[in-house]
Amino acid sequence: MGIGKAGLKKSGEPDILVILLPQSCNASFLFTSNHFKSASVLYSEKVLAETDRIRAMVINSGNANCGVGQEGIMHAEMMAREVAKHLDIDHKEVLVFSTGVIGKPLPIEDVLKGITSACKILEPLDLKRASQVISTTDRFPKYDFVKKGKLEVFGFAKGAGMIHPNMATMLSFVFTNADIDSLTLTELHKEITEKTFNSITVDACTSTNDSFGLISLGVLKEDMQNIRQAIGEVSLNLAKKIVEDGEGATKIIKVIVKNASLSIKAKAIAEKVATSNLVKTAIFGKDPNWGRIVAAAGSTPFPIDQFKMKVYIGNHLVYDGKAHPKATEGAKKYLEENKEIEIIIDLREGKENWIYYSSDLTYDYVRINSEYTT
Amino acid sequence: MGIGKAGLKKSGEPDILVILLPQSCNASFLFTSNHFKSASVLYSEKVLAETDRIRAMVINSGNANCGVGQEGIMHAEMMAREVAKHLDIDHKEVLVFSTGVIGKPLPIEDVLKGITSACKILEPLDLKRASQVISTTDRFPKYDFVKKGKLEVFGFAKGAGMIHPNMATMLSFVFTNADIDSLTLTELHKEITEKTFNSITVDACTSTNDSFGLISLGVLKEDMQNIRQAIGEVSLNLAKKIVEDGEGATKIIKVIVKNASLSIKAKAIAEKVATSNLVKTAIFGKDPNWGRIVAAAGSTPFPIDQFKMKVYIGNHLVYDGKAHPKATEGAKKYLEENKEIEIIIDLREGKENWIYYSSDLTYDYVRINSEYTT
Repeated sequence: MGIGKAGLKKSGEPDILVILLPQSCNASFLFTSNHFKSASVLYSEKVLAETDRIRAMVINSGNANCGVGQEGIMHAEMMAREVAKHLDIDHKEVLVFSTGVIGKPLPIEDVLKGITSACKILEPLDLKRASQVISTTDRFPKYDFVKKGKLEVFGFAKGAGMIHPNMATMLSFVFTNADIDSLTLTELHKEITEKTFNSITVDACTSTNDSFGLISLGVLKEDMQNIRQAIGEVSLNLAKKIVEDGEGATKIIKVIVKNASLSIKAKAIAEKVATSNLVKTAIFGKDPNWGRIVAAAGSTPFPIDQFKMKVYIGNHLVYDGKAHPKATEGAKKYLEENKEIEIIIDLREGKENWIYYSSDLTYDYVRINSEYTT
Repeated sequence: MGIGKAGLKKSGEPDILVILLPQSCNASFLFTSNHFKSASVLYSEKVLAETDRIRAMVINSGNANCGVGQEGIMHAEMMAREVAKHLDIDHKEVLVFSTGVIGKPLPIEDVLKGITSACKILEPLDLKRASQVISTTDRFPKYDFVKKGKLEVFGFAKGAGMIHPNMATMLSFVFTNADIDSLTLTELHKEITEKTFNSITVDACTSTNDSFGLISLGVLKEDMQNIRQAIGEVSLNLAKKIVEDGEGATKIIKVIVKNASLSIKAKAIAEKVATSNLVKTAIFGKDPNWGRIVAAAGSTPFPIDQFKMKVYIGNHLVYDGKAHPKATEGAKKYLEENKEIEIIIDLREGKENWIYYSSDLTYDYVRINSEYTT
């Protein structure tokens, strides 16, 4: 990796990261479902429409290269070409990512200079440092590493707000030394994303720039089940770190919907509870307010049976077809004493489960998002 | 109307309202789409499955009669029968509504006593007083009246958040002296609800008890267009009062999506912008942050053309296929100086428009919803 400065961060810290892979690698990328996409996302999508093998990536933080008209796409291409020129590789195998403020044109001369210096000194990948360079409002770097026998999976990410399914101002890159063919990689990537980055929320707002890449370095033949597990583990850990760093968050909320008739129903209900402002403020207030939980659970298109379902806060059964007032005190104590809060909704109608991660809604969330000025 | 006390409000104020109509009237009712419904809603839905003519309504505030098991449905029926007994009418033409805390069984003896005293002295309908009796955390009563020639439309409502901390609900009742047949009334009701009560948001949380009734007193033959307009006006005014009273709100946000290809697309985009926590905190912070507006607009299933669309804050063009930095200062001043804020998103692709009303997200919203304790 190479690190450079384009002066995009007010702190003056490095804001350009170049990652050179050892050779062209099979890679699968998923981007934001937002229709208002960053020009860098539009450019990288175009690159990936032509190839599923990539050689390098360039990431700038401090500027989203978004909402700046067609010029932004030109800037992204200039960034890819600059990397290719210095590293003597094909620019059609270089992806571009950006994160930061929306609506300000990139100071492209400075960015190209930053890329030039980043390409001059290439060091081995340092996950922590890589996360720091691409971070914006993050309070801590996000990276994870799993080694099982010879199998290695490692990744780094950034993100602290605008985090919602279908991803949000979240960048995440996961690598494995396992050799995975392109089609399998794509399927595996989608499957893992659903259970990890598409099952977290901070403020239910999707961003213009989210990207999650999975890259196979292609050197190790390994059992698929092991690969799936290791990549799933690293991806979930990165996703949870983003929730933990949610803007203003004091608690992580783990919403578990159990025994639903359909997997999509379990997910829809878990998502609704995890994104409910009323649930999120109640958890912040350490209030075992199951009324808000059941009201959120009931507000998806899927019917629920209110006389059959159960709700637990931690292991306190607070609702069982009707209120359990005696459990309230224990649940309140649980909320006061724990940082990771489990809410379990047992629909008692089938066998499908889903887990969704969220953070609480606090004064600091309002402060961070109302005092920020464009 | 008759007013009684069942001791459901901590303030000790009246909490039982009985409305007796002059005769059996055509009526259309729409209830919450939440699958976790109040027992009173379940009971009234059952009544309306058998008849579309009603003679009386009984409403209690201070207790939602929700999340209390099958017992709640029995309590609702007891309330209807008590009203019918005292007023000598058919209990199958009496509807029951409740609003307040979720999960506490109704003290049914006290409620029946309150109904008894309410039925003893019947006075003419006083809209303001009626709104006060059914209110919970409302800061002001909500009622409206339109008279055009001989046509009269009047209504009252309560609500200060689509759902309050365990205090569910929006209740709204609109009456007209116009004679409208049952089928027309139902269609008209749906149409008007879409543009009024289904186009407002405070916290994107639906409640367990929401109900909106439209009642034709059946004494005046009148042109349908006039009726539609007058009912639409009263309904919109009641809906806007609820937004104005939104928990912690300092501003009303009017999101206008213009020139969309489809009406449902215009509504989906308007709703997404109106419910975005990031947009709502930006408006609270008087920050003309159009990046958050376009990111919200892009996060529906409907594609948008970011290089063609325009965004106005008030009459300040802040985005026109790319940023208009010069408009930012004017837009900021507009946000500082006005209480009702217009956000206009012009998609420039068709002819369909939609308006959605919202409130800002403030410290007080978090305070109200996190400091409340069950």
